[in-house]
Amino acid sequence: MDQTGGLFPGFIQANLVILPQEYAIDFASFCTRNPKPCPLLDITLPGRYDTFLASGADLRTDLSKYHIYKDGKLEEVVTDLTAIWRNDFVCFLFGCSHTFEPLLSSAGIPIRYQEQGLRLSLYDTNIEMLPVGQFKGTVIVSMRPIPMEKVTRAAVISARYPRMHGGPLHIGDPSLIGVDLNLPYIGDKVEFLPGDIPVFWACGVTPQHIALNAKIPYMITHAPGYMFVTDFLVEDLG
Amino acid sequence: MDQTGGLFPGFIQANLVILPQEYAIDFASFCTRNPKPCPLLDITLPGRYDTFLASGADLRTDLSKYHIYKDGKLEEVVTDLTAIWRNDFVCFLFGCSHTFEPLLSSAGIPIRYQEQGLRLSLYDTNIEMLPVGQFKGTVIVSMRPIPMEKVTRAAVISARYPRMHGGPLHIGDPSLIGVDLNLPYIGDKVEFLPGDIPVFWACGVTPQHIALNAKIPYMITHAPGYMFVTDFLVEDLG
Repeated sequence: MDQTGGLFPGFIQANLVILPQEYAIDFASFCTRNPKPCPLLDITLPGRYDTFLASGADLRTDLSKYHIYKDGKLEEVVTDLTAIWRNDFVCFLFGCSHTFEPLLSSAGIPIRYQEQGLRLSLYDTNIEMLPVGQFKGTVIVSMRPIPMEKVTRAAVISARYPRMHGGPLHIGDPSLIGVDLNLPYIGDKVEFLPGDIPVFWACGVTPQHIALNAKIPYMITHAPGYMFVTDFLVEDLG
Repeated sequence: MDQTGGLFPGFIQANLVILPQEYAIDFASFCTRNPKPCPLLDITLPGRYDTFLASGADLRTDLSKYHIYKDGKLEEVVTDLTAIWRNDFVCFLFGCSHTFEPLLSSAGIPIRYQEQGLRLSLYDTNIEMLPVGQFKGTVIVSMRPIPMEKVTRAAVISARYPRMHGGPLHIGDPSLIGVDLNLPYIGDKVEFLPGDIPVFWACGVTPQHIALNAKIPYMITHAPGYMFVTDFLVEDLG
């Protein structure tokens, strides 16, 4: 399957981080203290790979691409975790801003990266999160150019869905949050049309960015853009 | 200090559950899957009694009344946990609907229990939560009689604050959620004025109700009504 942005309109898409159990309480604490970038939808029990978010789900195989990291370095990209599954793995699932994009579209707000056939632009920022133990660092944001007369409605619509990151973290001048639009952290540089304003939302890549910084000996995440698609509509878990 | 309902308008008030570390992942998973009654504001690391929710806080002494339970039975009511603190205690803090009451008042919505000098009415329901391990059971709700012409605004205002339980869980006929208004679970029976409709919100006593059902050998909670008052305004952590 391809990247999930723009697919399955209405259904909640989720980010995934899998950590050994010994890090689970610290990471749960970190996410609870930083809910804007890390809005928890589920925490699974150690060794379990099912989730209430989708009936019959198997988190070892249901995503189409996974990243495996050792000591904070990308070691391998795989499509199946069955052979490497461990009984101490705890899965954390987070809301994703792809979920509210169809609602922006329905409100007449263009999604520029989709119009241009590009990947969503993600940027690192200078916004520090509340640290917990070894988990600390800056917020990763997604950025969408929005026509100036539609910025307020984009803010109001997205703010209704705090578990999908909620309203924008920042609107306007990128330099105020340490962003250079020419240098995406992940994804493509998207073209602005005249009158577009950059609007920044906290991004669910943040928890994996933070876990990577912490140099956890072994961790697994979804590959950015290849989300877990749930059975739930966005209004179900608001 | 007295019960905190009606005091400190604008500031977030929080429910407290303290459990031994061995139950922490299961309980964090349970709360994440049931965020309406169990909206997590903080999880502390084992043995820690500070919280980012209030500068210089000491969760062992800052609440004015605590309940200590053994095997699911109330053993003691105390005002200080210092002498019995353990290095494996993990604190869970949850949003509280007292927080949005001043916003309802500002919108011209009467808070009947306060007008009548009573305690807020809490009821058990027949609404089952998603179970996790030994944690399972029904949602406890707070009930406020609201003049019929103001029910919608009460729903809309409270829905803006999902981490304080958000919008009502139920509006109208109590029997549909298994409630008999004559039989509060905790608190007082409040008097309805002509035209009042019962409006039910998920209540932060639910997580302690669930942990009690699970018959955890040793746990501590705030005494219902005696909340932890944070430094944050409700808009800060929306």
